[in-house]
Amino acid sequence: MKFKKYTKKLGKKYKTKSVSEILLDFLTEKKVDKVFVLTGGAIAFAVDSFSNRKDISYICVQHEQAGAMMADAYSRVKNNFAATMSTSGPGATNLITGIACSYFDSIPNIHITGQVNLKEQRGGMPGTSNSRQIGFQETDIVSISKPITKKSIQLKKAEDIYKVLNDLYNCSQSGRRGPVLLDLPMCLQRKGVVQSKKIINKPKHQKIKLSDINKIYKIIKYSERPVILSGGGVRYSNSVKELNKLIKYLKIPVVSSWSGTDTISSNNKLYYGHVGVYGSRAANFIIQNSDCILSLGSRLDTRITGGKPETFARKAKLIMVDIDKGELSKRRGLKPYLEVHEDCKSFINRFSNKVRNENFSFSHDKNWIKYCNSLKKKYPTVSKLFNEDKNFINPYLFVEELSKQLKRNDIIIPDDGGHLTWFMQAFKTKLGQRVFSAFGNSPMGYSFPAAIGASIAKNKQRVICIDGDGSFQINMQELQTVVNEKLPIKIFIFNNGGYGIIKQFQSLYLGKRYNASGIGVSAPNYKKIAKAYNIKYLSVKKDKDSRNIIKQSLVSKKAVIIEVFIHPNQKIMPKLAFGCPIEDLEPRLDRKEFLKQMIIKPIISDSNVIEAN
Amino acid sequence: MKFKKYTKKLGKKYKTKSVSEILLDFLTEKKVDKVFVLTGGAIAFAVDSFSNRKDISYICVQHEQAGAMMADAYSRVKNNFAATMSTSGPGATNLITGIACSYFDSIPNIHITGQVNLKEQRGGMPGTSNSRQIGFQETDIVSISKPITKKSIQLKKAEDIYKVLNDLYNCSQSGRRGPVLLDLPMCLQRKGVVQSKKIINKPKHQKIKLSDINKIYKIIKYSERPVILSGGGVRYSNSVKELNKLIKYLKIPVVSSWSGTDTISSNNKLYYGHVGVYGSRAANFIIQNSDCILSLGSRLDTRITGGKPETFARKAKLIMVDIDKGELSKRRGLKPYLEVHEDCKSFINRFSNKVRNENFSFSHDKNWIKYCNSLKKKYPTVSKLFNEDKNFINPYLFVEELSKQLKRNDIIIPDDGGHLTWFMQAFKTKLGQRVFSAFGNSPMGYSFPAAIGASIAKNKQRVICIDGDGSFQINMQELQTVVNEKLPIKIFIFNNGGYGIIKQFQSLYLGKRYNASGIGVSAPNYKKIAKAYNIKYLSVKKDKDSRNIIKQSLVSKKAVIIEVFIHPNQKIMPKLAFGCPIEDLEPRLDRKEFLKQMIIKPIISDSNVIEAN
Repeated sequence: MKFKKYTKKLGKKYKTKSVSEILLDFLTEKKVDKVFVLTGGAIAFAVDSFSNRKDISYICVQHEQAGAMMADAYSRVKNNFAATMSTSGPGATNLITGIACSYFDSIPNIHITGQVNLKEQRGGMPGTSNSRQIGFQETDIVSISKPITKKSIQLKKAEDIYKVLNDLYNCSQSGRRGPVLLDLPMCLQRKGVVQSKKIINKPKHQKIKLSDINKIYKIIKYSERPVILSGGGVRYSNSVKELNKLIKYLKIPVVSSWSGTDTISSNNKLYYGHVGVYGSRAANFIIQNSDCILSLGSRLDTRITGGKPETFARKAKLIMVDIDKGELSKRRGLKPYLEVHEDCKSFINRFSNKVRNENFSFSHDKNWIKYCNSLKKKYPTVSKLFNEDKNFINPYLFVEELSKQLKRNDIIIPDDGGHLTWFMQAFKTKLGQRVFSAFGNSPMGYSFPAAIGASIAKNKQRVICIDGDGSFQINMQELQTVVNEKLPIKIFIFNNGGYGIIKQFQSLYLGKRYNASGIGVSAPNYKKIAKAYNIKYLSVKKDKDSRNIIKQSLVSKKAVIIEVFIHPNQKIMPKLAFGCPIEDLEPRLDRKEFLKQMIIKPIISDSNVIEAN
Repeated sequence: MKFKKYTKKLGKKYKTKSVSEILLDFLTEKKVDKVFVLTGGAIAFAVDSFSNRKDISYICVQHEQAGAMMADAYSRVKNNFAATMSTSGPGATNLITGIACSYFDSIPNIHITGQVNLKEQRGGMPGTSNSRQIGFQETDIVSISKPITKKSIQLKKAEDIYKVLNDLYNCSQSGRRGPVLLDLPMCLQRKGVVQSKKIINKPKHQKIKLSDINKIYKIIKYSERPVILSGGGVRYSNSVKELNKLIKYLKIPVVSSWSGTDTISSNNKLYYGHVGVYGSRAANFIIQNSDCILSLGSRLDTRITGGKPETFARKAKLIMVDIDKGELSKRRGLKPYLEVHEDCKSFINRFSNKVRNENFSFSHDKNWIKYCNSLKKKYPTVSKLFNEDKNFINPYLFVEELSKQLKRNDIIIPDDGGHLTWFMQAFKTKLGQRVFSAFGNSPMGYSFPAAIGASIAKNKQRVICIDGDGSFQINMQELQTVVNEKLPIKIFIFNNGGYGIIKQFQSLYLGKRYNASGIGVSAPNYKKIAKAYNIKYLSVKKDKDSRNIIKQSLVSKKAVIIEVFIHPNQKIMPKLAFGCPIEDLEPRLDRKEFLKQMIIKPIISDSNVIEAN
């Protein structure tokens, strides 16, 4: 009450706004219209500033972890920005796993955490720096979040709010993008600040010299077996149209990483699938036998190169385009022929122009395209032969059927583990669809809150969530958010009775001792869970019913849980064995057949090093 | 397979054990017999080492956050040590909020996180230090967890395992205790190490000089209105017996902090309740009017002193005993007359001997005890007058009834928010009971997994969990763990339709605008949730039914969810208004009555500073 009078007075005299109002102004200016909120004492003032706003509102989440993942997906789908608000201490630390998703996948957003009053913090008064805490719910979230944010700042003076927001936003959006965190002490949230003019300093992007564009053009022009590798950077820099234009001009084969999966249609004649440990045989043979790779925004991580990067595309000139110098400078058995430190969009545009101006299209080695096409035909990712067990669903066939029924504007979000792999191997993307997971951080429990965030970003559009019986539990509480916000999310739970991908690992390397993956593990009855939330439930156990069940779930205008029963020992196929080069996927091809497909010299390898699957 | 041969060979030659086996040996040596586990690729080798053990096993949790809280409670109840195991990346970051609970409340335990192979980490190979990640599920958990652990280390060489475990354990148990973290790269988990002898260097405790003991004895002896404040340090140093012995000798009044609540029986004639912002009127009048405070292991935080520490016990000589120098050196309006840097147990024992040897007991100012007793009589924490609304349960009356029915060996764990406060204000502790929450970190969602951890620690004994309709959702997924492990946990959900403590704050300071606490907030139907898990459900809406419903729930040998319906506007009473000295709780007493109770000079204060409730 006192405070009201105080700000009113200030307001009249100096045209002030409170820090919290300025915060919401900033978010609306950046086109954020929904904020994912779990309130608490230390953020209550900031949340109160929503009271009179029509341009921005909040979504109440049940757990901050889910809120951060919603903001991650909201930002991906809008290709823009997103925000969460939570209270101090545990409210802030609960965000960490979600923030890490955004950091490792270059997703820009801001997390606003309440904090105890400046004077009541460690270090806020004399002699208090060595205490663990002064009050309660006080945690040094700035230090904790530093390793997984681009910047993490506590506001120290109300007057700095414009500068700090500007800094954080530009940092989040500049170069390789990512999350930022603003820690906001209670005492500053309601403080009036004299309105300031906007400070605008836009992000700068590095551009390579024109001579490099010419050089790259020549390398590709004179190569015999060139291939484009489309990575997450193409998506994150919003360059999908530009990529597809470039492909039209260049007419060379394209493969993708998982993160680049929705940058090109699976039906594109020049597309040959994913490369890597869980890649398609065709794509892996192609990239391994190529003599020139144009890698666009892929960090060429272990899941792409396999455990021995030195065996990856070992005869190819690797042109690596990346906005992040740190990715270009890695020397772990892989050495780029040319490092191009540039934003994908800017590079693709400039390179496209060059190709168009030169009127070039790849045609001088027709055998290369023939070879690629023959591989695609010979090694489809899904085969009818997969239909082995009549009492369980084969996940590959199921996902293939799902792809058929989905539309060009659908958003599909798989989670982590066995079902992610089956999904990525079998799904056929249509251009326009969004297909993503938190590929870098890869937590269990991402896809469901992400589906919520994506749906909110698209005016409550339907979103397809692909989850597992283990991972769904991690953020299951958000079923309440689905119900509360009336979101038509289709939750496919692939139930294989445990953590399938770990079981496959244990089956291979740990004598089938299924500790904590099968033994001791359990999951709730999802039919009853659905009933508890009054959500429609469907289930499917036979491949022949898949088509109809998928149809039923998609026709509904409401949320649906669809439980898909998979054999507990369902394997992921193909999959690379540890230490092998990626062209030699398991189950291994007959050696004669294998050698026939190799243009470059094959290597027979072996290793003791085992990586996490 | 290759590996098996390898270790077998090593084993025969040098008598080696794998790092993972050594880890389990270490835990069993420290009397940890259950480890809270959520597996994953990067921890699978370590988890596999449970295969042939009879002395130690694992509990599968549904979410690592809950696992860390289970380990926190397991350690509290055993007053010893505890452990979790989880995988790299999100598996590790999911622990953070739980680890923070242990850090702020001085609970020793170890968190073992899997990590990607050394060579596949950032910095593991040339030029990789500036990458965000090399593979996937890789996060710098050591840096992230540093601010909330006593020590956080990544094992770099298998041979260091003995030394590292010894360091971590001693650090965890020395001085002010707390959690530690061991980050364990995959490649080291299965590595054979030549068995080493144990390295033993036990924690050292600071002892004060004998002259100080004499000094303290004199101060108390010659004071007129002395009082003991029993804090969490008494519990954490396992000195409950010692404290009660001291009280018997000294015969001076005792009050406690929330953390010290189970160090003394509520029925002890010399006990007058909790002090602080949500304290009892009696205890607050007593401590504020005292002339000498012996504070045992209390950090005298904001919730005890109120927002203006300079008004706290302003005429008293404050003798502050704390194992943590950082707590003694705080200068935030509060200045100890004597700082005693010593472990509570050691201090209480030595001081008790002195008092006994001098044959002293407080008797020279009988008016002081009379005054204290009159306050206790005049201002009971629970009054029959509370029974106002016939259609809802009054939480104070309910908790009082619950105390009556519980036994001397029961463990009771409240959560955070409104129901925590009602509970702490109304519960009557029996000596022998354990009553705790994660008071410092104070997250929503602690009490339920903590109840699981406590039950596991006590051979599946019944545990009472007190939760709220908002907070229960945070770790609701662990209902599956309750079912899977068959734990007789009694889950009381105090349902007041939102975040009650925030609503009270908004009602006072934000014009009753219930943003994100009442508006936009919802909770599931807990009756249906109970049904989904096949857990017995009871509910109560009328005070007259409480006795019977509590009885029914306690008689059952299984888990029960008891939903307790509370009025959405149920207030917390009494409660300190911001800026007031703690003797002047709201609703304010008639000024005449108030002044009558003040022995020292009263102050009428006011303030603009608002703290989180």
